[in-house]
Amino acid sequence: MNRAVVLLSGGIDSTTTMAIAKSEGCELYALTIDYGQRHVHEIEKARLVSKFFNAKKQIVVSVNLREIGGSALTSSIEVPANRTQEEISHGIPVTYVPARNTIFLAIALSWAEVIDADTIFFGANVVDYSGYPDCRPEYIRAFESMANLGTRKGVEGLTEFSVKTPLINMTKAEIILKGIELGVDYSLTHSCYDPGEAGIACGRCDSCLIRKKGFIEAGITDPVRYAL
Amino acid sequence: MNRAVVLLSGGIDSTTTMAIAKSEGCELYALTIDYGQRHVHEIEKARLVSKFFNAKKQIVVSVNLREIGGSALTSSIEVPANRTQEEISHGIPVTYVPARNTIFLAIALSWAEVIDADTIFFGANVVDYSGYPDCRPEYIRAFESMANLGTRKGVEGLTEFSVKTPLINMTKAEIILKGIELGVDYSLTHSCYDPGEAGIACGRCDSCLIRKKGFIEAGITDPVRYAL
Repeated sequence: MNRAVVLLSGGIDSTTTMAIAKSEGCELYALTIDYGQRHVHEIEKARLVSKFFNAKKQIVVSVNLREIGGSALTSSIEVPANRTQEEISHGIPVTYVPARNTIFLAIALSWAEVIDADTIFFGANVVDYSGYPDCRPEYIRAFESMANLGTRKGVEGLTEFSVKTPLINMTKAEIILKGIELGVDYSLTHSCYDPGEAGIACGRCDSCLIRKKGFIEAGITDPVRYAL
Repeated sequence: MNRAVVLLSGGIDSTTTMAIAKSEGCELYALTIDYGQRHVHEIEKARLVSKFFNAKKQIVVSVNLREIGGSALTSSIEVPANRTQEEISHGIPVTYVPARNTIFLAIALSWAEVIDADTIFFGANVVDYSGYPDCRPEYIRAFESMANLGTRKGVEGLTEFSVKTPLINMTKAEIILKGIELGVDYSLTHSCYDPGEAGIACGRCDSCLIRKKGFIEAGITDPVRYAL
């Protein structure tokens, strides 16, 4: 059985990516990062998702990106609300966390080397946020090259690390339909950037808006409750 | 004044690298990583070094690599003692932390993007530990390529990120002599992998042995006390 590290935030994309890794017969090692995000509630969701898929192991690694700030997700910058589709899909939003995916993939690489996995599954997607530099295929390929030069197993030729991004060119509706086909229970997932204290989704941030639109386009009822 | 992020552990290499960055006229942003290392004492030293060089800012970012383990520095694997020069300089030791430098550089990249710095100074060195994959020039170049593809500023052409490794081909003695020339106070630094409770260097781990040898070869008295 191929071991795979799956970056799991507990959102729709990473949960569907986990379902795909499972459908490909991988033994799942779920990696959740607590990076001081506003929506720390998603970590609890990631635990449930991990259990749902019977992951061999899940770990939560904390890295305090609040020290660095620079994003609405890790500082007091306000999370934008009720933006139009046009606004959401152009440019890099203030919710972009500088080099976040590089940090996440680096931690995944570290764990992959320790547990002898050669594959990292990562739910990056270029469709909804076309402006995110660290979701693009050319970035992912550059990370792989670096990974194979900067690890013991890569250099010794024992492993060729690969980062699989099965969702990279899919729309949110296509992702949801793929997940439904694979038996994902989306009531376990969480998308909101700015949830209330009880973890209720705000319904107005970019992430909620993209999620709602995705479920509508997929013709599926979103099992998550929204404040608005 | 060029802003530069300097990865600062408080050891000889990163402290000398900081002195070099300063001598090149950079405004210093010192980044210290608390990664659950055995020698957490070095974080206190990094604070002193940062002050000594009048860094514009120092931050300590914690990332809990103990969750991942796989190294004598982050787990209960024993730190080797009294190895010969021959043993130290061949192969990858158990103190290697998988993908650690990639994680460190990724965090440095994140901060660099937030504060608008285009240079990261990093005290990597290939001479003492020839086996470390993530200290080699080809790895550093691959990291830069990835950094420029995976950041807003890199993609928008606003910044070309570079990782400077001025010590990469120097021996420990050459590094110490360079530091002395630049006014480094090495009594502020810390090298031991396995210090006692009061932070006294063990004198037996690879890092202590390399340090002692470096000072002897440089003809300088090591200002640090050793238990043995």
